[in-house]
Amino acid sequence: MQKYRLAIDAIGNDLGYQPLVEALETFKEANPNFIFTIVADVEKIKPLFKNFDNLNFINNPEKATLENVSLRQAQKQSSSMKTAFELLKDKKVDAILSAGDTAILLAHSTFVLERLTGVDRPAFMPVFPTINQGQKFLMLDVGANLEVKPSYIYQWAKLAFIFSKNVLGVKIPRLNILNIGTEDYKGFAWHREASQLIEADKTLAPFYKGFLEPRELMNGVTDIIIADGYAGNMVLKSYEGAVKSFGQLIKREITASFMKKMGALILKGAFKNAKNVLDHRNVGGAYVIGVDGLVVKAHGNSDKTAFLGALGQIKNALEKNIIMQFKNAIRE
Amino acid sequence: MQKYRLAIDAIGNDLGYQPLVEALETFKEANPNFIFTIVADVEKIKPLFKNFDNLNFINNPEKATLENVSLRQAQKQSSSMKTAFELLKDKKVDAILSAGDTAILLAHSTFVLERLTGVDRPAFMPVFPTINQGQKFLMLDVGANLEVKPSYIYQWAKLAFIFSKNVLGVKIPRLNILNIGTEDYKGFAWHREASQLIEADKTLAPFYKGFLEPRELMNGVTDIIIADGYAGNMVLKSYEGAVKSFGQLIKREITASFMKKMGALILKGAFKNAKNVLDHRNVGGAYVIGVDGLVVKAHGNSDKTAFLGALGQIKNALEKNIIMQFKNAIRE
Repeated sequence: MQKYRLAIDAIGNDLGYQPLVEALETFKEANPNFIFTIVADVEKIKPLFKNFDNLNFINNPEKATLENVSLRQAQKQSSSMKTAFELLKDKKVDAILSAGDTAILLAHSTFVLERLTGVDRPAFMPVFPTINQGQKFLMLDVGANLEVKPSYIYQWAKLAFIFSKNVLGVKIPRLNILNIGTEDYKGFAWHREASQLIEADKTLAPFYKGFLEPRELMNGVTDIIIADGYAGNMVLKSYEGAVKSFGQLIKREITASFMKKMGALILKGAFKNAKNVLDHRNVGGAYVIGVDGLVVKAHGNSDKTAFLGALGQIKNALEKNIIMQFKNAIRE
Repeated sequence: MQKYRLAIDAIGNDLGYQPLVEALETFKEANPNFIFTIVADVEKIKPLFKNFDNLNFINNPEKATLENVSLRQAQKQSSSMKTAFELLKDKKVDAILSAGDTAILLAHSTFVLERLTGVDRPAFMPVFPTINQGQKFLMLDVGANLEVKPSYIYQWAKLAFIFSKNVLGVKIPRLNILNIGTEDYKGFAWHREASQLIEADKTLAPFYKGFLEPRELMNGVTDIIIADGYAGNMVLKSYEGAVKSFGQLIKREITASFMKKMGALILKGAFKNAKNVLDHRNVGGAYVIGVDGLVVKAHGNSDKTAFLGALGQIKNALEKNIIMQFKNAIRE
């Protein structure tokens, strides 16, 4: 059975060590071929484990943070996250899991790790939910690269296509470029040039469905949406905000009278379901793709379930040998 | 009593002439000082009116459309919308109301109308709802200018500030620039330069609250958010999409069982309220600001209430003499 080595930056989760430790204990039982290197305050995290099989520890209790420092300074400072990235850089592990600061994680991905040959920039790629239970889509980039070149979009399309087919198991992935309208003339010159690059690639062309507005994203109309990091980040945060605001408003509306409270009691599960379905944090981690190694970012307030989800995503990607598949596709 | 002259592009509403005619009949009764020039298929629309006081008609049944033509071609073609813009250009009216195509409306605003002295580009400015009943905010630009210069952002901030105070009646408008993060170093160079321009203006500086992410927009944390048209358009369409998707999902969830259907029956009004509150179409029209005349875009499927709302907005802006206030502020 193939062994997989995973570095875990255990500092930075809002809920502390406990949810991660519980997730790891559960995950390890079913996956004895995984070897973990946990970067944390070792004295504090070690007593929380009952079972030490396949566990290594590296002491670095320093949290990657932007408090009082610039992003550039944060990258230079010692942190559990940086230690994890150095392990991946030195090929001592195959993957990283972190719930730490996204901006610093993206900076380390860009400046510490090696890029895959043929990929100009890494991209940050969360998995998004749709209103159709179980159906998901990939959106990238959502913040690593505010400005893009047409070639970035094309390269990311290639990577995400392989990812969608092999890791998410989508048989016929529908591929779109995010734009302010669906018409050919909309957006910037790079939108049109990236379209042409994708259309000229005979592997991707049959799956390319043109520009897509952010309006219909969650209705399951696409499997992969490629964006510049500026727009991608805006859309991600708008959806997050809208779902949260809508949830708050409904809560307020349905507690406005006794009768409504009765109705709300009956429907409690339905609201929770709806909010959970549309909360992209529950879908799993976000991937950094384009670098020579797997980097998965778990949400900053991950519970045991969220960490188990992220570990499952890493397992799936490693078993599908996604990095090798990326390399082969880019080489072609 | 001061007279106001309003051109109405009556072609282009998905629901036909009837809702507009009904809104006008109601509005005219209370506002005899308004004189309307209706551009439409006169033979068809005229019989729908009972009362012809203060009504003029210009026959132009051609719809402004992008079907089979480029935006450039569409601008050249005769249309009811173009006729309305020419009336405003020639100062034969003080304002335009249209429910037609947004892209063509923005193109006409940019290329047909005169800009206010000191304003480089017109901006498209919808009024957005928040989850706090009655509280609204302005967002601009949402699509007229994909790329911006720092000076555009500064000029729009000035206009929107006056609008917020005088037309929306916000006593202490909070002003923000849309960005992917709140930290000073986030975004593009123009974000930072625009910030500096606003901070250097002693009228605006006390009201400027820095960068704002799209996440909290609907929670009532700002009164004016200035954006490049690219990001503004993405955020607008993301919020629209999220509210619609969330509504659909909840509908599906609450009809999943008999008990849930019972609960849903009790809560019917609450859902409708929540969706209506967050549907920016119900807040009113969107303004084109920065040009020498008032242009208001009603939504493409406006009903009588929506048109009455838009007419009320125009009345309010005209009575507050918003264009003169813009001119004075820019001149200072």
